[in-house]
Amino acid sequence: MLAEMPFYRPVGNECILFEITYRQRLPLLIKGPTGCGKTRFISHMAARLGRSLHTVSCHDDLTAADLTGRYLLKGGETVWMDGPLTRAVREGGICYLDEVVEARKDVTVVLHPLTDDRRILPLERTGEILQAPDEFMLVVSYNPGYQNILKSLKPSTRQRFVSISFDFPPAETEIEIIAAESGLPVKQCIPLVNLAKRLRELKEIDLEEVVSTRLLVYCAILMKSGLDPFQAAETALVEPLCDDVEVKQGLLELVRATYG
Amino acid sequence: MLAEMPFYRPVGNECILFEITYRQRLPLLIKGPTGCGKTRFISHMAARLGRSLHTVSCHDDLTAADLTGRYLLKGGETVWMDGPLTRAVREGGICYLDEVVEARKDVTVVLHPLTDDRRILPLERTGEILQAPDEFMLVVSYNPGYQNILKSLKPSTRQRFVSISFDFPPAETEIEIIAAESGLPVKQCIPLVNLAKRLRELKEIDLEEVVSTRLLVYCAILMKSGLDPFQAAETALVEPLCDDVEVKQGLLELVRATYG
Amino acid sequence: MLAEMPFYRPVGNECILFEITYRQRLPLLIKGPTGCGKTRFISHMAARLGRSLHTVSCHDDLTAADLTGRYLLKGGETVWMDGPLTRAVREGGICYLDEVVEARKDVTVVLHPLTDDRRILPLERTGEILQAPDEFMLVVSYNPGYQNILKSLKPSTRQRFVSISFDFPPAETEIEIIAAESGLPVKQCIPLVNLAKRLRELKEIDLEEVVSTRLLVYCAILMKSGLDPFQAAETALVEPLCDDVEVKQGLLELVRATYG
Amino acid sequence: MLAEMPFYRPVGNECILFEITYRQRLPLLIKGPTGCGKTRFISHMAARLGRSLHTVSCHDDLTAADLTGRYLLKGGETVWMDGPLTRAVREGGICYLDEVVEARKDVTVVLHPLTDDRRILPLERTGEILQAPDEFMLVVSYNPGYQNILKSLKPSTRQRFVSISFDFPPAETEIEIIAAESGLPVKQCIPLVNLAKRLRELKEIDLEEVVSTRLLVYCAILMKSGLDPFQAAETALVEPLCDDVEVKQGLLELVRATYG
Amino acid sequence: MLAEMPFYRPVGNECILFEITYRQRLPLLIKGPTGCGKTRFISHMAARLGRSLHTVSCHDDLTAADLTGRYLLKGGETVWMDGPLTRAVREGGICYLDEVVEARKDVTVVLHPLTDDRRILPLERTGEILQAPDEFMLVVSYNPGYQNILKSLKPSTRQRFVSISFDFPPAETEIEIIAAESGLPVKQCIPLVNLAKRLRELKEIDLEEVVSTRLLVYCAILMKSGLDPFQAAETALVEPLCDDVEVKQGLLELVRATYG
Amino acid sequence: MLAEMPFYRPVGNECILFEITYRQRLPLLIKGPTGCGKTRFISHMAARLGRSLHTVSCHDDLTAADLTGRYLLKGGETVWMDGPLTRAVREGGICYLDEVVEARKDVTVVLHPLTDDRRILPLERTGEILQAPDEFMLVVSYNPGYQNILKSLKPSTRQRFVSISFDFPPAETEIEIIAAESGLPVKQCIPLVNLAKRLRELKEIDLEEVVSTRLLVYCAILMKSGLDPFQAAETALVEPLCDDVEVKQGLLELVRATYG
Repeated sequence: MLAEMPFYRPVGNECILFEITYRQRLPLLIKGPTGCGKTRFISHMAARLGRSLHTVSCHDDLTAADLTGRYLLKGGETVWMDGPLTRAVREGGICYLDEVVEARKDVTVVLHPLTDDRRILPLERTGEILQAPDEFMLVVSYNPGYQNILKSLKPSTRQRFVSISFDFPPAETEIEIIAAESGLPVKQCIPLVNLAKRLRELKEIDLEEVVSTRLLVYCAILMKSGLDPFQAAETALVEPLCDDVEVKQGLLELVRATYG
Repeated sequence: MLAEMPFYRPVGNECILFEITYRQRLPLLIKGPTGCGKTRFISHMAARLGRSLHTVSCHDDLTAADLTGRYLLKGGETVWMDGPLTRAVREGGICYLDEVVEARKDVTVVLHPLTDDRRILPLERTGEILQAPDEFMLVVSYNPGYQNILKSLKPSTRQRFVSISFDFPPAETEIEIIAAESGLPVKQCIPLVNLAKRLRELKEIDLEEVVSTRLLVYCAILMKSGLDPFQAAETALVEPLCDDVEVKQGLLELVRATYG
Repeated sequence: MLAEMPFYRPVGNECILFEITYRQRLPLLIKGPTGCGKTRFISHMAARLGRSLHTVSCHDDLTAADLTGRYLLKGGETVWMDGPLTRAVREGGICYLDEVVEARKDVTVVLHPLTDDRRILPLERTGEILQAPDEFMLVVSYNPGYQNILKSLKPSTRQRFVSISFDFPPAETEIEIIAAESGLPVKQCIPLVNLAKRLRELKEIDLEEVVSTRLLVYCAILMKSGLDPFQAAETALVEPLCDDVEVKQGLLELVRATYG
Repeated sequence: MLAEMPFYRPVGNECILFEITYRQRLPLLIKGPTGCGKTRFISHMAARLGRSLHTVSCHDDLTAADLTGRYLLKGGETVWMDGPLTRAVREGGICYLDEVVEARKDVTVVLHPLTDDRRILPLERTGEILQAPDEFMLVVSYNPGYQNILKSLKPSTRQRFVSISFDFPPAETEIEIIAAESGLPVKQCIPLVNLAKRLRELKEIDLEEVVSTRLLVYCAILMKSGLDPFQAAETALVEPLCDDVEVKQGLLELVRATYG
Repeated sequence: MLAEMPFYRPVGNECILFEITYRQRLPLLIKGPTGCGKTRFISHMAARLGRSLHTVSCHDDLTAADLTGRYLLKGGETVWMDGPLTRAVREGGICYLDEVVEARKDVTVVLHPLTDDRRILPLERTGEILQAPDEFMLVVSYNPGYQNILKSLKPSTRQRFVSISFDFPPAETEIEIIAAESGLPVKQCIPLVNLAKRLRELKEIDLEEVVSTRLLVYCAILMKSGLDPFQAAETALVEPLCDDVEVKQGLLELVRATYG
Repeated sequence: MLAEMPFYRPVGNECILFEITYRQRLPLLIKGPTGCGKTRFISHMAARLGRSLHTVSCHDDLTAADLTGRYLLKGGETVWMDGPLTRAVREGGICYLDEVVEARKDVTVVLHPLTDDRRILPLERTGEILQAPDEFMLVVSYNPGYQNILKSLKPSTRQRFVSISFDFPPAETEIEIIAAESGLPVKQCIPLVNLAKRLRELKEIDLEEVVSTRLLVYCAILMKSGLDPFQAAETALVEPLCDDVEVKQGLLELVRATYG
């Protein structure tokens, strides 16, 4: 999809693990917090393996037909239109279902025959049974941090995936990423990542999630474009995280200690 | 959309912040109470930056297709019809989703690929993947004051936006706004804004929201057209806020102290 | 719609207030109990101002399309058909949404761009953006007496309306109304309105609502057509209000004191 | 609809009340238990007044379109098809909504403009506004005995109807009805109605409803056709009322005392 | 439907009762546990009376249109297609609704005009009102053993049916049935029915239902085909009844006492 | 469907039982945990008996039409398209409904006339009644381990099936299976199965399900492809089972004891 390979700075051996899983034709589950780089990692690996990437953001109202395809009326004829999963299977590409726990069960069940040794995708509506080529790979992800009780992957689905856990990168790596993405000089990225470390330690105080690498990149971009660092941090790190006035004050004090 | 630039009286540096965010191609989240001027601010900035504005009021029954588009049957042919988000992307305009927390998750998820560095809008139904031009900007807003537990923005969505908070303007600015909008002389606007200050301090007594700048403008319009000030305040400031007889009596006593 | 002006007997200055609101192009919210004359008042004002009236009784299953319009299939072509709100905007008429709290939020949200200074009605499906003419007015009503917790107007909607409260008319006015509507001589209407006063004071005993002016008119019509007054009151004032045998006995005793 | 007038044995002055209500063009609400003769009464009155009868059994899934009508596709054209309410309005017939509390609010709200002095039926889909002729009458009914909390008529709907209560007929009348309907000699109907009286007094013991006049007619028909009276009573009076073994034993003992 | 008459071994006078009910044109309700022979009984009676049989298994998602019929698009024309109830009415056949309590109320309400003296089926969609011929009969059934509180027949529906209760047949009859259905010699069926008697007495221990005649026939078929009797009983009598390991052990001990 | 017979290593006499059930034309219910080999067993038996296999993974949103078929619009004509159940009935194949408890009742009810002695499939929409040939077999399965209270098979459905229980195979058999599936030498499979035994004994500690044979095969594949055994076990046995950090530590300690 993208002509050039997206920048990705590996943290551990996740690239090797991805490649083995791909070569062995096993499906992969990636767990990790929002904005830690899961989507970027998969774009990078797809480009590296020379495979097209078909991304689907999952949600409550996604239907199985949104994945597999549907009939459309064209010129009085019903014409079949492949969905992203079907396109990935036909082309031998990578299909990536982001936040798969948000999907309804009828959607996750569609994945079952693709995730055991059959590796088939039955299209009930067209009567076809597609055999996935060796190059096809299924990757799903979710954030274990804010799963609720109502939504979780059924064991019969989970047990079909090889799985790895992601987290935010260690400080040096994160500095390197922020500098590369924003163009802000490394020495200005260092206090930002230090501030992030302190903000993340505040997690217990009523925040659903901590500040992500993505928000740090946003903050660095605002700084790079000349905005006052305190205001950049308020706008990119504090306001996006919460609405509660007291919690915001607590976060702003930490910001002030760095940029005040 | 509007030929002339809508009147907007800045309170802080919100215009500069909006412009930097626009230039850096980052999505923006604006938080603030009902009737404080969010919609007007965005209309003003769109006109100032020379961009078309595509506003969508979000609600429970809004579907992803209402944003992206749908097929219609015309002359036996299915014809694709862009939704407001798609039109904004194609034209390089500003798409503004008002009260975004009211939208279902399948709608907010549609925004994800537009709000990271990909800046793409995949149209599953047509098979197109639109690359947003630099001029495209996504703005969303909500009122943090009456979010309930069932409805809130998922962290994975929130963390994709740079964010600023709005509040009612300080007294002098609000007087200036009311005079400009209603044509009522400034010296008659002063007691009205003083009354508003006292009404807003009563928030604890069972009111969902305090009186907005918009209602003050309505009140000034009724006064300007010759209605008795007490009755104008009852009709524009008290009745729209609540139904409870005792609470209304409490509010009317404050009104009486000014206009009785 | 109606050639002659419907009879309406004003209680206070509600006619003047309605007219100012109309001239200032502000939307109006009318609150009051069932059968107190809200619908009649609006029919009267529409006729007086020479505007067409488009009434919609709101309910749970009303959709936005029921207000704005929809495509119908005609001769193989999809033809757009305006809804009552759109017709009122195009003609410059009055659109009246009765019991607006019963409507779902996607319906009330459609009203937002018509109720601020933009006064526009975007028709997403046709791509049109209608500018309301000065003669267009939006009126909504509800009964604050039996709103439940689940259904209420959002503050962001309420704060868009100038608002007035209605109640049953004072005795002399109500006698005049009943006589005019039923043709029953005034001296026979007097004991009926006295009875109504006593029945209304019983509200605490498990009645959802008290007897309305409309039911008094029904009762007077039955009396006028020769039915025994006790039976007329039982049929028109007691049975329509409740099913509970004991409560009915309590009401009938009051009736008996007058007509027994 | 029916050529001959259905047999109906009046209990009080319900026929006169119905006729006055009809002549005064008021809508009528009839309350009463299952199988007490409400439907028969209305068929009888319709025939007597020479009006066609349009009966609709209400339920949860009845839509407004089921009452008013809908477009059907015929020969590539959409053709409008009147629903029973619309047919009754056009013809000047009687529309009878049985068990109206079972209907959803969007259905009951359709009745509002027909039940005040406007007497109109707006057909949003065709753009027509039908003025009901004087001969049109709306009758609704429900059983106050097993209304639950979730389902009841809104006061704003109830207060639009003149209302009468039905109950099972007194013994002599019920004997006469059973004999006429089943052909069983009167002297055999007497013990049956006596048994019914005793069964009805048992209501407190966990029965949702008592035995109806209809079931007594069924029982008489089975007896007339030669079935043993005890077995006829078990089959037509006991088994249809309950499933609980102990309650059935209690009822059967009463039956045995008469027919054992 | 079936050329030969299905085997049915009467237990009491149910065949006579069915025939009288049929001749008197009354609707019939049959109550009884799963697998006791209700469906077979009705097939037998339909064949005996020379009527076609139209069976519908009721469930939550059955719609009124599934019973009465719907329009289908054929060659650009909408063509009406009768449902099983309508076919039965037109042909003068027997319509059997199995497990009628599972149906939604809009489905049961469709039956009302067919189950009083009118015996009509109004087809709102086609505008037809079908008069049921004398040969038409409506039969419904349910299992009173596991009705829940949410699902039950409304009294206004129940009171429209003559009703009989079924149970498992007495031992000698059940032996005869099993032998006839499986081909297993009678002397081998005797211990099986004795075992069933003991298993049925265990009902209190957390089983939703006891072993049915149908499962005994299955067990006999497995034995006849050479399977070890203990294993046949485990497979056909124990595993189908429950999943709980301890309950299964309890049942298996009883099996072992007979076949161990 | 598959040309060659899928590998299956029997644990008990399940193959014989399946074959008898098939020959006697009885429907079969298989119970057992996720990943224990139910699907493989059925593929194996279908191939062995020379029957085509039609697998459907059941879920909440599966409709009866997904099983039986539906009309599609083609060239202006509606064309009927068989669903997998109908195809299996027409061809005399095996229809396998995986996780049948997840299906809605309207789906399970469709199976009823196929699972008693009638062995018919009525297609209401086409008006056809298909008689299943002797070669047709219906197999359903579910996992009794995580059934919730809301979802379970109704007794009236369960009592229509002969039933067998599956569990994970004994150690020797499981070693044999893993070696055959992964190509990993038997002596390396032994410690893996020993580890699995210990992991399965930890079930009480907050795991919804224990490690399946399928995950052991995945682990062996990763080892075979050169991945460090500890990492292979973390990726294939620990991460797929849970998200809780402490539980994962507990599981990893057991892994470390074997591969540390």
